[in-house]
Amino acid sequence: MPALSKNRIKYIRSLDLKKIRKEEKVFLAEGPKLVGDLLEYFPCSFLAATTSWLQGHPFVQADEIAEVNAEDLSRASLLKTPQQVLAIFRQSDYELDKSIIKDSLCLALDDIQDPGNLGTIIRLADWFGIEHIICSPNTVDVYNPKTIQATMGGIARVKVYYTPLPDLIKSLGDTPIYGTLLNGDNMYSQRLSRNGLIIMGNEGNGISKEVESLITRKLYIPNYPQSRETSESLNVAIATAVVCAEFRRQAAWK
Amino acid sequence: MPALSKNRIKYIRSLDLKKIRKEEKVFLAEGPKLVGDLLEYFPCSFLAATTSWLQGHPFVQADEIAEVNAEDLSRASLLKTPQQVLAIFRQSDYELDKSIIKDSLCLALDDIQDPGNLGTIIRLADWFGIEHIICSPNTVDVYNPKTIQATMGGIARVKVYYTPLPDLIKSLGDTPIYGTLLNGDNMYSQRLSRNGLIIMGNEGNGISKEVESLITRKLYIPNYPQSRETSESLNVAIATAVVCAEFRRQAAWK
Repeated sequence: MPALSKNRIKYIRSLDLKKIRKEEKVFLAEGPKLVGDLLEYFPCSFLAATTSWLQGHPFVQADEIAEVNAEDLSRASLLKTPQQVLAIFRQSDYELDKSIIKDSLCLALDDIQDPGNLGTIIRLADWFGIEHIICSPNTVDVYNPKTIQATMGGIARVKVYYTPLPDLIKSLGDTPIYGTLLNGDNMYSQRLSRNGLIIMGNEGNGISKEVESLITRKLYIPNYPQSRETSESLNVAIATAVVCAEFRRQAAWK
Repeated sequence: MPALSKNRIKYIRSLDLKKIRKEEKVFLAEGPKLVGDLLEYFPCSFLAATTSWLQGHPFVQADEIAEVNAEDLSRASLLKTPQQVLAIFRQSDYELDKSIIKDSLCLALDDIQDPGNLGTIIRLADWFGIEHIICSPNTVDVYNPKTIQATMGGIARVKVYYTPLPDLIKSLGDTPIYGTLLNGDNMYSQRLSRNGLIIMGNEGNGISKEVESLITRKLYIPNYPQSRETSESLNVAIATAVVCAEFRRQAAWK
């Protein structure tokens, strides 16, 4: 079994850097479940796996396949606990078609910074049938390895775009633009649509002033027992989930 | 300004280890918002802060206070981006009174492993007015620094207990015991109570067989568009949030 070369290991590990990922137009994914999911959706340029994983996947397609031992895998891996297989996939370049926002429910993320939060949001969007997420240019890179791992495969089905949000929103006409704000209306008392954009803001600063001014449907997630005096808040991925669940409850179960 | 001694820095950093935290019956918290919140609720045995933080908090109470520079703080800190203040607090030892589960809504966590997930669950429990969380003995330690940071202060208001779940549940009589399971009933079609226990399971394996057999109200979080054939799943903190939100919606807004 040929070992992975030092250069190869260095290259794999360098995919932790956005600059390198952007130049190479690739991203890294690790683990049998995730790699297995992504192989169906993204072209794979390189795959390294243990003998037993490869035996279980005789028809795997990749430009290059390396059979490696656990030691090599752990040297190349960015995970605390390396797992059987890692793969390098080519990034997808999606064109945003604005009519999808007029016709279906989409998410917009205004400067989300934490890669785990972005990955978790992609995973829950997948669960709630939200297929398009539009990010402000300063939102963390979707191809960050921590994001990819946290999507648990959701990245295969959810399309993520980067574009300035104010211009996008201004071009949407009367499509409803939702945002959660402390001075919003209790979302349980609102009729929520099956289309439009739900905007979620940065972890520390929330939604930016300019984007906030473009929100046409301000929502509030009530806490319990209800009091707006509270100093508590919700993590942005948690807030996104609770809001998306309510949109979908009203669409399907109300 | 006296520097922190090497031994002191070593001691602070050792609080990343459960063994040391348990022996010392303390935990570490960092950052102005979190430390500020916790100072109102937990006795503080040691606090290290920059001059400017201390000037803004002239009445801070701690057994020992050290004025430190940014360099010392960053040597002692477990965070990637150290912040102005860190503090060591004494752990609280709560006695579980079972009548609270009969009278109010509580969470039970069956072997949650990720410290960030536990912290996020404590934070959202705080938001939804759930004041008691009962963990199986193998659930990650609530005093793990990553958990404490993720609670964003929720640990001050939410009480966390560790006890074997099967014995606890068996002692609760006809108190409703909820769990989310793939073969459960759509939670939107169920009448949810204001008391009882909601059980959430391990990240990889879900709820253990023995605990599952004791669930009296099996719930299912519907995805959208609905199909149980899906391979997707929700992160455990996300699932907890969506379930708790629905319990509270029914209690307050239905």
